[in-house]
Amino acid sequence: MTYCLGVVTRQGLVMASDSRTNAGSDQVNLCKKMFTFNKPGERIFVALTSGGLSLSQSVISVLSKEWDRGEGLANAETMYDAARLVGQHVRTIGDIDRPALERDKLQFNVHLLLGGQIKGSPPELYLIYPQGNPLRATEECPYLQIGELKYGRPILDRGVKFDTTTLEEAAKYALISLDSTMRSNVTVGPPIDLLSYKTDELDVKNHRRFVEDDPHLMGIRRQWEQALRKAVQELPAVQFNGKPPP
Amino acid sequence: MTYCLGVVTRQGLVMASDSRTNAGSDQVNLCKKMFTFNKPGERIFVALTSGGLSLSQSVISVLSKEWDRGEGLANAETMYDAARLVGQHVRTIGDIDRPALERDKLQFNVHLLLGGQIKGSPPELYLIYPQGNPLRATEECPYLQIGELKYGRPILDRGVKFDTTTLEEAAKYALISLDSTMRSNVTVGPPIDLLSYKTDELDVKNHRRFVEDDPHLMGIRRQWEQALRKAVQELPAVQFNGKPPP
Repeated sequence: MTYCLGVVTRQGLVMASDSRTNAGSDQVNLCKKMFTFNKPGERIFVALTSGGLSLSQSVISVLSKEWDRGEGLANAETMYDAARLVGQHVRTIGDIDRPALERDKLQFNVHLLLGGQIKGSPPELYLIYPQGNPLRATEECPYLQIGELKYGRPILDRGVKFDTTTLEEAAKYALISLDSTMRSNVTVGPPIDLLSYKTDELDVKNHRRFVEDDPHLMGIRRQWEQALRKAVQELPAVQFNGKPPP
Repeated sequence: MTYCLGVVTRQGLVMASDSRTNAGSDQVNLCKKMFTFNKPGERIFVALTSGGLSLSQSVISVLSKEWDRGEGLANAETMYDAARLVGQHVRTIGDIDRPALERDKLQFNVHLLLGGQIKGSPPELYLIYPQGNPLRATEECPYLQIGELKYGRPILDRGVKFDTTTLEEAAKYALISLDSTMRSNVTVGPPIDLLSYKTDELDVKNHRRFVEDDPHLMGIRRQWEQALRKAVQELPAVQFNGKPPP
């Protein structure tokens, strides 16, 4: 399983991913799911992947090859064009692999998140579906998730606002969302890649990888759990009414 | 969709359920999912249901009919026997309805939680699967959930401990877990039924139904969100390391 999320706010972008991949619970491996494409001062893209590893690798391989030739994402005029380009590659890989997968009743399953900025336009965040169509994060819903998304969603729903959440806060929300998911589903696991991108920075300056038992992550987890328990204690007690109606 | 949960701790039981039922998003109704069977001073059972409403209604109907005759749950010697009895009824309803459902590619889907206490034994909490087999909550995992369970799980994972969580706290955790789920999935909805049962009380004394926009629930939700945001602000900022490894 996988859990990746992106958050876009007025101040910039936060992208986060776990690193566990499994083909059944008896075949678990580590695999980086965050890929950056950066031309400092001009453009930056961060791609996160979930789904069949062979499929997402293929998409990233094609994107990288193009990038190295100065094509593809290197030339996209807008973030929308960039998301469409990724979607086009998803469709191309689908054309290659889908028939053989479906013959064996396997699903063509690959999702990507693409966050980034091209000079002159604001940062944007997209989700690209296995069918290749892109969905953009909005001010009303400033985060997108792929993979095992439910455990980590309530904290985002409660806390993340496009206008008021700072980049520093967004990074903490993303980390808590990932940590909550790891706690409830062991097939989502460390290392965690966390990247914070400030609007108009047009460079990758703030990345952190949290390995298993990272003391900083352990400290945040401990402090978070204490804060939650304290918050529960401080809530007013539920007032009960006696017997339920028949 | 449905979300129900039960928590068992040293001090007693908390049972909670939403009240939304839907057959597709264009056919949404209200329906109570909490049922109590109580012989004060002797025994108490609280059943929560999820899955096909026609199926869970059938199981509850049979249980109620038996109860009124002084049979079934009214005679069960242990909570394990009671859970087995519910499972037996699930199997009987399965025998009646499963073939017709499966002929039309519909799943026989009914899950129940059964919490309660019989005089002389401690309170126990069981989940009964659609196949009729019962699972008991343990001191290591003192809560059980049915239905849309992922959104509401992280707060339980972080906070609920069999030995140290008080009954008052358990009620708050259950309410937050349900409220978080309602927030993230509109097919889980109010009224919320919340029941708190103190060990050896052997009576139903503490029930509360929260309707939509219940001021008490709104107050708890507001205070909880404020506390979460404050807790995030108070976490140490993430220390980043620069560029990600290639």
